This record gives sequence, structure tokens and C-alpha cells, in this order.
Amino acid sequence: MTNPFWSPALADLQPYVPGEQPRGRKLIKLNTNENPYPPSEHAMATLASPTLPEALRRYPDPESVELCAAIASHCGVKPEQVFVGNGSDEVLAHAFYSFFRREEPLLFPDITYSFYPVYCNLYGIDYCTPALREDFTVDVDDYAGPAAGVILPNPNAPTGRILPLDEIERLLQLHPARVVAVDEAYIDFGGDSAAALIDRYPNLLVIRTLSKSHALAGLRLGYALGQSHLIEGLQRTKNSFNSYPIDSVAQQLGAAAITDEAWLEETSDKVMATRSRVAEALHELDFEVVPSMANFVLARPRGMSAEAVYGGLREHGILVRYFNKPRISEYLRISIGTDEEMDALLDALREILPAPGTSQNR
Amino acid sequence: MTNPFWSPALADLQPYVPGEQPRGRKLIKLNTNENPYPPSEHAMATLASPTLPEALRRYPDPESVELCAAIASHCGVKPEQVFVGNGSDEVLAHAFYSFFRREEPLLFPDITYSFYPVYCNLYGIDYCTPALREDFTVDVDDYAGPAAGVILPNPNAPTGRILPLDEIERLLQLHPARVVAVDEAYIDFGGDSAAALIDRYPNLLVIRTLSKSHALAGLRLGYALGQSHLIEGLQRTKNSFNSYPIDSVAQQLGAAAITDEAWLEETSDKVMATRSRVAEALHELDFEVVPSMANFVLARPRGMSAEAVYGGLREHGILVRYFNKPRISEYLRISIGTDEEMDALLDALREILPAPGTSQNR
Repeated sequence: MTNPFWSPALADLQPYVPGEQPRGRKLIKLNTNENPYPPSEHAMATLASPTLPEALRRYPDPESVELCAAIASHCGVKPEQVFVGNGSDEVLAHAFYSFFRREEPLLFPDITYSFYPVYCNLYGIDYCTPALREDFTVDVDDYAGPAAGVILPNPNAPTGRILPLDEIERLLQLHPARVVAVDEAYIDFGGDSAAALIDRYPNLLVIRTLSKSHALAGLRLGYALGQSHLIEGLQRTKNSFNSYPIDSVAQQLGAAAITDEAWLEETSDKVMATRSRVAEALHELDFEVVPSMANFVLARPRGMSAEAVYGGLREHGILVRYFNKPRISEYLRISIGTDEEMDALLDALREILPAPGTSQNR
Repeated sequence: MTNPFWSPALADLQPYVPGEQPRGRKLIKLNTNENPYPPSEHAMATLASPTLPEALRRYPDPESVELCAAIASHCGVKPEQVFVGNGSDEVLAHAFYSFFRREEPLLFPDITYSFYPVYCNLYGIDYCTPALREDFTVDVDDYAGPAAGVILPNPNAPTGRILPLDEIERLLQLHPARVVAVDEAYIDFGGDSAAALIDRYPNLLVIRTLSKSHALAGLRLGYALGQSHLIEGLQRTKNSFNSYPIDSVAQQLGAAAITDEAWLEETSDKVMATRSRVAEALHELDFEVVPSMANFVLARPRGMSAEAVYGGLREHGILVRYFNKPRISEYLRISIGTDEEMDALLDALREILPAPGTSQNR
């Protein structure tokens, strides 16, 4: 795998493998937590702006001032408490570089977003992964001790479990001199955001994305919220990497999307209602369903291996996410689609799973 | 400047400072080498695609397969010899990480794109900067000796000077076990591309952008061309940083833009014709004009300091680039605008500069 022209450490990287994006074949796609509803029409209308050719001819605003102002207004923070990036993955990468390159290890749960160890390898950061409890909740006491910082998604992925804000505060108090990053990619589906704590905790960084709740995974917009000294740290890294990470289309469309509060409330409510209904139906199909505050559920079939159910669903033209990893290899992560898509999923499961009372493939 | 929450090395970064993007005030903007003509209408038409809301709802193609195919066809290489990034600045950052983190210093000219030392600081890369000759040409003999690699823009910026392909080949032969990166941001304005050498040199990486010649600075698209083992190295880094760097709009619009060969030929011809005329007019105004193969000229006023001319132009509502740096502090870098914009520049210079035979402010 090594190559004489590569930097010596390059062969040691373990790149992230994203969920499959099937080309061509028409599948019901419940594998990457995309929003099932189209983005705000108010936002899409910006694409027809007659000034767009001129905006594209010129360099975009390197500071994304209007977009940051729209995000600040939406989140109830000051514009100087907002940093935007090319998807929350870029924001995360800059956060790892800016805050976690230290002697001590970074702490994150053993079951979590699998990009975190990839960033650690990229930047030579040591890490420790305290185990979630058996029910996939976080035990904050496991996060005491010397650390470069803490990062965790809340709700966690791929579990869907949420950590209450008073527990987030305990984490912040355990590491007053280190950044605690709360990755809120899924916060708009019923959770309480830690953004409300920013003014009280100089070590709190909240990271969010327009990919899930705003149905704009294809636009690549993520952001971080924190006190201005943390935002300034991210800007130092960003301005040493790419001055203009957000293109003019994304700045305009993103600002309009985040301003459309009615769209967000309506679609999030629909996703949450479908989630409740699907969780109940899966339970009736004898799945163990992990309580979720995200736009997916992690669920364990009982009569059949998760991998076999994954394969069976694929044969029915339905794609869900299967992780061949310790502790979750008997679970499937199922994104919440439209009601019609979820009905198709449930119908397929009824065909795939063994009839009640029988047991196979265990 | 240091901060207890930042990674210890963060305060040592020296972030890049991009050219000014004036907000609000209407200026003739000749300071950041944007194309004066609007982007291809064929490309802009992709924004009206009825499938765009669905494309934005989903994650984009992480590999940008169609965009890479369009670039390969345009450049006469194979699709597996193409890597795309969020502007050529991101491509450059990944190239520095992927190829230049070695014991020896990276080599680049003393007068060149000022982001190169910034990347070196970001990734802890040592560097040496051989001086350009007095006429701002590169002396390839200065690039012998142990090195992590070589990078230079061709044409160089901010000089506009081009290094002939046989000299590029000498550089490639001096460092057969190291990557030589040729940054061709300005190659479409009359230069010969090193892309023709890729199949013969496993150490050649060519980097380009749609920002200048395709009038899409606001879209943020850059790419690298090289043998597939170099492209694979860049992909390893990219997939450890951000799986989806190119949004769906940029993938579609960029592919259409790069396919519109007639647009490129017509607008590049216009820019080159204007460049010839402006160089001659500046010469008549007693400027020393560095021969340029880019969409800008570097020129030295003789009767007045460059900084004073910069200030005078600004008072006339015309923005050019002034670098307060060794060896070029008596020069101005002037982007090639439309004929009307350049006429306004020349008229303003006639008012600002002292009458022939007099001398002031030297």
C-alpha cells in the first residue's frame, strides 16, 4: 500500500468509508440519514437569482458574513459565535486540529461517529474510547481524568441515544481547561441543544449541519457555535487551509434555508411522528428498538441475524445501514423516510422475518 | 494571541490573507484575478434543473465521478488521473499533506503564491525559497539538492512569468523520487500545460482551477492531474478529512462549464487580446511591465511609488493588488478586466501619474 512518492505516514491513514450512494438503481434509501422531504422552496428559489452569474464569477465572501448572521439568529447566539464549514465534517476536522492536538488522549465513546478516529489518525492525536453502558447511554464518570478534550454526538450516532443537558454540563465541568465538543447533527429531531450553555462555558463547542434537519446533505454546510475565542481558533486553521470554503450558491441558499423556520418545524414534526410509529411497529415485529432522538432508529431483529435482514431488505430494494462492528453487529440503523417508504420497509420485514414462534439463522 | 483551549501550536500559524472583497461600495475590481466575463450560460442552465431539489436533499457523489470524467475529457487524461477539490486551495492543502511531509525541505520560489508557506506551517513542513532571477524567471539549477519536493505556479503568480515545458521536465528529472507540483491556475491564458507530460513522469502533479479561466471563482472547484498512484494518495487524505467536499450544484455546474470548450476559447482570447493592449499602454505610461502569460500583469510605475499609485487608483474607485513585500513592493499586480474597465484604469493612471519629464514621490 505504501508508495515512494507519498509522505511516509500516508499509508497509515485509515480513511472514512461513507454510507453507500447507489448510482443508477432505484432503491428506497434508508442508509445515510438524509431527510425524506425536499428542501425549503424558499431556499431553492435563491437558485433563480439574476445576480448569481455575477456572484459565481467573483470569489465568494471568505467570511460568509450573511450566512453566519442567519445561523446566529436561528440559534440565538451572536454572529461572532458562529463558524461555518464545507459540511460539518470539515468543521470537525478543523476542530480536531485546532483544539485536540495535545499530549493527553481525546475521549469519545466506543460506539460513535466512525470519522472521529480517522481525524485522530490524520492529525496524530491519541484517543481513548470509554465504553457506552449496555443500554448505549453515556456514563459521564468514565470521562474524568487527563484528556485533550471530549467529543461526542448528541444524540449519539448510530445509537440515537441522547445525553441530557445536565449531563453535558457535568462533562464541561470535568474538563474546564479543555474543549468539549457536542456534535449535534441530529439535535433538531426532539433534543435540547447545548447552544443554550455557550455563554456560561468557554470550553463548549457545538457543531451542527444542514444535511439532516434542513434536507441539504447535497449542499455541504455545517457550522460550529462557541465563544468567540474558540471561533477564532477555528478561523486560524481555516485560513491556513482554504480561505473560501463556502461557495456563493451555498452561502445564499443556506442562509435562506436556515431562515425558513416554518419549514423546519413542519418537516421535523413529520419525521418525529413517523419515528414513533416505526419504533412501535418494529417493536411489534419483535425488534429491540433503542430509544432514538435522531432521524434514524437502531434496532435489533430477534429471530434472524442483522446481516441477513440487511441482505433481505436489499433484495427488496431497500437500503439500510449495517455495521460489522463490535457490540452493534446485531443491529441495523434505519433512517426515517416518508411514511410510504417506512410502510414498504415494514412490509418487506414481514416477508423476510421468520413467522412468530419460529427461529432461524441465529 | 495564545489561548488555553487551543492546540499549543495554533498560535504559531500565520494564516493566509486573501485579496480584499469589497462589500457594498461599487469598485472596478482588478485585485483578485477574477475573469471579467460571466460564466458559460450552458453551465448556468444547470441551476434550473428540476432534479436539483432531490440532488440537494441527498449526499452528493463522494467521488464526483461525472465531474472527473468531464475534466479528464477536457484535459486529455484518464478519469483515474483526476482528483477534484473545494477550490484549488483545498487540492493544494491535500497535496502538501500527502506528498511533502518529509525530512527535507520543500522548494518553491521566493516570489510566488503566498499560501505555500502557510500550508507548510499548517503541516510542519520545512521549506527553502530559491530566489527568482532579477527578471523574475526561475533558474532550475537552484532546485537541485535534497528536497521533499518542488511546487511552483506556472505561469508564476504574482509575476505572470511562464517556465517553458522543457524546463519543467528538467525539474522533474532533478527529483525523480519526489513530487513536482505545477500549479496551473493561469495556464489557459496562453501557456502550454504540463498535463501532456503526465504519462511520462510518475512524479508530476498538475493543479488547476475553474476560478480564473472558467469565471467560477464563486463555485470553488479545483483539480489535480497525475498518475493514478498520486491521485490515490490525495484520495487517502481527502477521505480522512471530508468525504463529500464537492456539493451537488458544483458537480453539475462544473461539469457543464468544463465541457463548454467554445466559451473557454472565446473568453480566453478576449482576455489575452486585452492583456496585450494594456501591457503596451502601460509601457507607454512609462511602466516596466513583466511579460505575462496570466490574466494579470505585474508592472512597476517609474515616476511614483507603487503604493502611491495604488492609493490613487483606489480614490478613483479602482482596486488593484499591492504587495508590501521584498522585491515586489514597487510593483502593482493588475488583473485583466473588460476593455471598458481597463480603459478606466488607463484614464485614471493618466490623471494620477506625474506628467512626462517630472518626477515625484520617489
